[in-house]
Amino acid sequence: MKKSFGPKTLIYPTPVWVVGTYGNDGKPNVMTIAWGGICCSQPPCISISLRKATYTYGNIVEKKAFTINVPSDEYANEADYFGLVSGRNVDKFSVTGLTPVKSDKIDAPYIKEFPLIVECKLLHTVEIGLHTQFIGEIMEVKADETVLGTKGLPDIEKVRPILFSPEMRSYHKVGAYIGDAFSIGKRS
Amino acid sequence: MKKSFGPKTLIYPTPVWVVGTYGNDGKPNVMTIAWGGICCSQPPCISISLRKATYTYGNIVEKKAFTINVPSDEYANEADYFGLVSGRNVDKFSVTGLTPVKSDKIDAPYIKEFPLIVECKLLHTVEIGLHTQFIGEIMEVKADETVLGTKGLPDIEKVRPILFSPEMRSYHKVGAYIGDAFSIGKRS
Repeated sequence: MKKSFGPKTLIYPTPVWVVGTYGNDGKPNVMTIAWGGICCSQPPCISISLRKATYTYGNIVEKKAFTINVPSDEYANEADYFGLVSGRNVDKFSVTGLTPVKSDKIDAPYIKEFPLIVECKLLHTVEIGLHTQFIGEIMEVKADETVLGTKGLPDIEKVRPILFSPEMRSYHKVGAYIGDAFSIGKRS
Repeated sequence: MKKSFGPKTLIYPTPVWVVGTYGNDGKPNVMTIAWGGICCSQPPCISISLRKATYTYGNIVEKKAFTINVPSDEYANEADYFGLVSGRNVDKFSVTGLTPVKSDKIDAPYIKEFPLIVECKLLHTVEIGLHTQFIGEIMEVKADETVLGTKGLPDIEKVRPILFSPEMRSYHKVGAYIGDAFSIGKRS
């Protein structure tokens, strides 16, 4: 028997991603989001949704660029902090001691200490309601050598990204390997 | 030292969601996606991206409705299968023995055996490239009584959604609880 919850942003899993931008004054800023996902394979694109009230919103409109920084679970505290305060009032890099690095391909900073980084150029802006969706074309992906796996790709068990549960408002780690995609479901 | 991977749809985590639709003939169909995410809080919206070539694409254009069904990890095999074949050629419900149920609020079927269901009405269509993004307004969320946690909400540890790793092409389970959001990062 299924229980009804009405119209709610209640689905699992959602990501914990930290969006990096520069302000008009060149100040690097970061904020944490969970409303986002890959949205196209060719060109490779990611969408993120922000409220207009955020400092990051204005930065993306101005610079047309942002990074997505994937925190490993050891940075859950910092990632949560980045969602609690505004870059208008605080220098979040100074407070946390993390290091902003200028991206290679776009005009936005990434976080040196985070293991997986995606550099995006703004492609589309979609007004939905409380949130505006920015669709960014992925210009570059970078990962720490220490998180690479057997295929030479970033291994999710080494990157250790964080999962966010909307409504429950909790964070979880990545768990055990289940199997290979496009494989375990094959029928004879 | 970070290694460059160039422009790729490579970020973690992404979800494993099964999209339910009806065909023109009323036949229920499901397909698996990993390109999607919540994209607005008010109205509550989710976006999913599909290639035009899919059977589900035409169904959403026609019916302007879809469900998102969150498989628990015990259904990883079925979820993978739903991404391997087309509803044009196969009745995926018959093959897997899963049960389609008509949604209450929209014209699309959900999967009875999956623990968490979101019913969406098509709100916007965004042409990006190989993929078209459908933004659906969430009209209803349903969950099995057996996956509810202490707050009366679906508990991610009981729902046990599946994570997909792009490029690595692997599935993983949800792991250990880390802490509460909007809380663990608070500074004095």
